[in-house]
Amino acid sequence: MTMNRHIRAALIAPVFALAMAAIAEAGEAAPLASWNDGDTKQAILDFVASATDESGPNYVAPADRIAVFDNDGTLWTEHPMYTQLAFALDRVKALAPDHPEWKTTEPFKSALAGDMKGLAASGEKGVAQLIMATHTGMSTADFEVIVADWFKTAKHPRFDRPYTELAYQPMLEVLDYFRDNGFETYIVSGGGIEFMRVITEEVYGIPPQQVVGSSVKTKFEIVNGKPQLTREAKLAFDDDKDGKPVGINAMIGKRPVAAFGNSDGDRQMLEWTAAGPAATLMMLVHHDDGTREYAYGPAGGLPDSPFGHMSQSTLDEANASDWTVISMKNDWTTIFPETTK
Amino acid sequence: MTMNRHIRAALIAPVFALAMAAIAEAGEAAPLASWNDGDTKQAILDFVASATDESGPNYVAPADRIAVFDNDGTLWTEHPMYTQLAFALDRVKALAPDHPEWKTTEPFKSALAGDMKGLAASGEKGVAQLIMATHTGMSTADFEVIVADWFKTAKHPRFDRPYTELAYQPMLEVLDYFRDNGFETYIVSGGGIEFMRVITEEVYGIPPQQVVGSSVKTKFEIVNGKPQLTREAKLAFDDDKDGKPVGINAMIGKRPVAAFGNSDGDRQMLEWTAAGPAATLMMLVHHDDGTREYAYGPAGGLPDSPFGHMSQSTLDEANASDWTVISMKNDWTTIFPETTK
Repeated sequence: MTMNRHIRAALIAPVFALAMAAIAEAGEAAPLASWNDGDTKQAILDFVASATDESGPNYVAPADRIAVFDNDGTLWTEHPMYTQLAFALDRVKALAPDHPEWKTTEPFKSALAGDMKGLAASGEKGVAQLIMATHTGMSTADFEVIVADWFKTAKHPRFDRPYTELAYQPMLEVLDYFRDNGFETYIVSGGGIEFMRVITEEVYGIPPQQVVGSSVKTKFEIVNGKPQLTREAKLAFDDDKDGKPVGINAMIGKRPVAAFGNSDGDRQMLEWTAAGPAATLMMLVHHDDGTREYAYGPAGGLPDSPFGHMSQSTLDEANASDWTVISMKNDWTTIFPETTK
Repeated sequence: MTMNRHIRAALIAPVFALAMAAIAEAGEAAPLASWNDGDTKQAILDFVASATDESGPNYVAPADRIAVFDNDGTLWTEHPMYTQLAFALDRVKALAPDHPEWKTTEPFKSALAGDMKGLAASGEKGVAQLIMATHTGMSTADFEVIVADWFKTAKHPRFDRPYTELAYQPMLEVLDYFRDNGFETYIVSGGGIEFMRVITEEVYGIPPQQVVGSSVKTKFEIVNGKPQLTREAKLAFDDDKDGKPVGINAMIGKRPVAAFGNSDGDRQMLEWTAAGPAATLMMLVHHDDGTREYAYGPAGGLPDSPFGHMSQSTLDEANASDWTVISMKNDWTTIFPETTK
């Protein structure tokens, strides 16, 4: 039996190799089609070529091919406010009838009036209050339904598209290109992990177990004879800034070899990646395209978002390090996917 | 070009299919070889057959094939104490010269004297003190080295084998069998996540990102110009009992369809799995083999471990539910892998 198996395997091996090679060739397409040729695109191509070259000095074993991506502003649009905040504001409106006190209490008053300046004045604490009031007090299963329903109808104010169609086409190509080359692609975002997980598979091809994000505490309890996880109004983990390397270590347990971000919140993630022993790739998306998307941070154009942006000091660090800055304006031939669903 | 590609693909498709089928046949081996035929083995075979039968009512899509396994007592031996506690006791001895006060302070005094009764008397709080004193205050990278070094020389007192060779052969076969059928296999353990991750790939074929466990807080900081994560003496997450469904949700974001445990600490994980919408498999390893391993919990034999065991009430719940109890004595032809390294 064993002998027979070995002989069969030996006989079919060459046929198999031939078939695999032909299939690989048949399925081949030029990677990064929405990237203009130039140093930025070349940095990605060179890194992947080098990391997958078994005979080269920068070879990265498949098990260590971990690439991490911030979400808001890196994989999809975050202006005029990040998507989860738009969700929270819509939820405040939906829940307002049950909370008459919100009409006179900040930050709810500003949220209901659509007064973004008032909301910004309430600071991170105010935003956290909005998030807790709209994201907790229900089971994880119910929250998933609320989020999924919202994504079905909500549209971006300027682009008039569902938020799920505001992923950056060039970044979708980067995700595909990395995965085609044996990388696992993870989202590592300050956003809520259970908010993102509802759509990351559909939008990015990233399954829930490859999403790292901020979270609230959940409590296991039996309700009406059925176990559920109830979302509580307590922060469990803040996956931003210093929290990003911590979250990566907690959830992945490996140091990434490639990291993509766009804001000050991504700095430590890029530093952590850069300090690894292998060859690494660090990239920052620079929002310098006020025509096709937005120009903010060092590119000016818009006032700095109170909800996170790239400061000049992060851009300086990128330039002083071997981080590559992606110019949306110059490096990308298109911003969003052409087809709508 | 496109046409040419399609023609090539059409031409090689049948060859490819043939090659794949031949390879599948050549590599085929009877699954669960160390399991005696009977209801228990059959429950596993039936579940997997049913979950992978696309035309059947219990089909589980590949993306949802999540199987979770407790570690201590489920995948490897946990008597006379779980492996991480053996590590902690050895570390207390190694660090004792720098801590003269430990000679007269509990739980260190009992730990140094090898007085397990005294240690048990210090309770969970005492064990937590030992863990914190030996597992924190260093970088994650240094901790990994300390753990790896320990595993190279430490041996189990009764079996005189490295702990990494005390995985249960029948459970290694279950892990392989699930993975061969498109399941992702996760460890979900009350043990320390960074302790386990050092050896889970080698012992179980489970990579770090598929280990869910208890954790201490880590802090991102720049030390001598290099970023590091420092392990702090504060619990970040307790992945036991109620914590197991919480940890599963946090790290995997999907509900498992199969769950294996052995103690009271696994009850909620099995309840959470059982309450899912799909067909599910819940199993409990019962330590009833005092000859080849240990008999404890409802099987009596040994005094109940202060560090976790199956109570009669958990066994009752298993019998009242559709959980399957695995008898080590009757269901397993062998306990440990035959070959040592």
